[in-house]
Amino acid sequence: MADLCQEAMDHAVALAKKAGEIVRDALQNEMKIMCKSSSVDLVTKTDQKVEQLIIDSVKEKFPNHGFIGEESVAAGQPCLLTDDPTWIVDPVDGTTNFVHGYPFVAVCIGFAVNKMLEFGVVYSCIEDKMYTARRGKGAFCNGDPLQVSDQKEINQSIIATEFGSSRDPEVVDKIFSNMRKILCLPVHGIRGSGSAAVNMCLVAAGCVEAYYEVGIHCWDVAAAAVIVAEAGGVLVDLEDGPLDLMSRRILAANNETIAARIRREIEVYPLVRDDTPIETKQ
Amino acid sequence: MADLCQEAMDHAVALAKKAGEIVRDALQNEMKIMCKSSSVDLVTKTDQKVEQLIIDSVKEKFPNHGFIGEESVAAGQPCLLTDDPTWIVDPVDGTTNFVHGYPFVAVCIGFAVNKMLEFGVVYSCIEDKMYTARRGKGAFCNGDPLQVSDQKEINQSIIATEFGSSRDPEVVDKIFSNMRKILCLPVHGIRGSGSAAVNMCLVAAGCVEAYYEVGIHCWDVAAAAVIVAEAGGVLVDLEDGPLDLMSRRILAANNETIAARIRREIEVYPLVRDDTPIETKQ
Repeated sequence: MADLCQEAMDHAVALAKKAGEIVRDALQNEMKIMCKSSSVDLVTKTDQKVEQLIIDSVKEKFPNHGFIGEESVAAGQPCLLTDDPTWIVDPVDGTTNFVHGYPFVAVCIGFAVNKMLEFGVVYSCIEDKMYTARRGKGAFCNGDPLQVSDQKEINQSIIATEFGSSRDPEVVDKIFSNMRKILCLPVHGIRGSGSAAVNMCLVAAGCVEAYYEVGIHCWDVAAAAVIVAEAGGVLVDLEDGPLDLMSRRILAANNETIAARIRREIEVYPLVRDDTPIETKQ
Repeated sequence: MADLCQEAMDHAVALAKKAGEIVRDALQNEMKIMCKSSSVDLVTKTDQKVEQLIIDSVKEKFPNHGFIGEESVAAGQPCLLTDDPTWIVDPVDGTTNFVHGYPFVAVCIGFAVNKMLEFGVVYSCIEDKMYTARRGKGAFCNGDPLQVSDQKEINQSIIATEFGSSRDPEVVDKIFSNMRKILCLPVHGIRGSGSAAVNMCLVAAGCVEAYYEVGIHCWDVAAAAVIVAEAGGVLVDLEDGPLDLMSRRILAANNETIAARIRREIEVYPLVRDDTPIETKQ
């Protein structure tokens, strides 16, 4: 198992680099944009191209492995985490950023065995930052070790979150209400890079104390979850208990103190779980 | 005048580089933090050190020039723009980012003659991006020309703004109410780098369509205003008319269409002008 994980991780890093080159190349050219669910939820040809590259390469090298990818699920593939070795991939995290050339766009590759995350690779490709972590082996950015902030005072903290892509007034109400409660704890500031994975890597790097969001998907956070954990951080469900990859909610923090303080403020709202069978979703 | 401006601009670029090195060095060491007005309004020894470096160097090379700097004004110096050649400096724009190592921290040097901005230098020193513009000569990032986005549809735009440092409930109400109106126009997204100058440079680079904020100071935006204008953008007062450097309000946009659409939504609130005489402020 140890060898398989290392082999898969080495392959993931190579794939992320290659994918990042495709993303950077695409940014130089005009982007063909297609609407997915609304004008704020964009998907580009590049997402699909990058995901296909990763699928093809994984299927060739590891034919028995499972695969969960944003574009595959959008195309009707199931989103089920089994005990099989499974690759969990977001080809372009921060698609809106990508469309605008906003400089936080990440290729995310997570890998789970027996439903446990074994490694994560997040390549923030415009910044050229390769974040990597393997369970029990530490987290790194371009080879330098990462360590979360040691801040325990919420009022000395920066919190990352996002406005999200929903413009449903009730959802927007909740998002703003939560942000306002956090801002007025008070905290030093609220930031959002526009990429869940980059926000989590910023937690791992100690630049922000925590990141929370309701509405994310498993492929947005699986890879970065390993990076946060290996940098010394904690990952919990915003509602209760440990991180549930399929729950659409996440709170990644530098420590339990900050995590508990944030969790106390945030009001969650119901969302369709990622692992809901397709026939039920419809 | 032409020669003076070029000489001053070359000097500003050299000073910004040197200042950026100090900022990066300081980030490697523990930062000594002092409270200014609240726990969210931080000023560090580095701000003061960098501003003093710039003042000393300017006074030596251009003894007759005026100077407006964030730390000098905080220390009681007047904030008056006369017809004299005047340097308008923010030694560390994005101080909260700086304290946390969040990667948007800028050294800003603007230069005005006869109250007209002649050049702007913004060095985003963690990213190592040197933004420069001289009136009538175009805007550049590390030597590459900058051009604003050609987007005219607000619902295809990303807008930059900030939560600000005030935690006064009435101010926070206004900030959130404005953000919500913008989000639900709808727009693709809202971003905030934590640095006014970097937000404006992102407008100039075409990564976001516009940036607005109430509560900024002249030193936050003077340098970047030249960069936006020279990249083809527009600068207006959020309330009415052209940009008023001392009004504490700004709207920088890629074009008049986007600017007008945003201005229609934003509710401003009264603030003490930057050029209010000190005895009146107190």
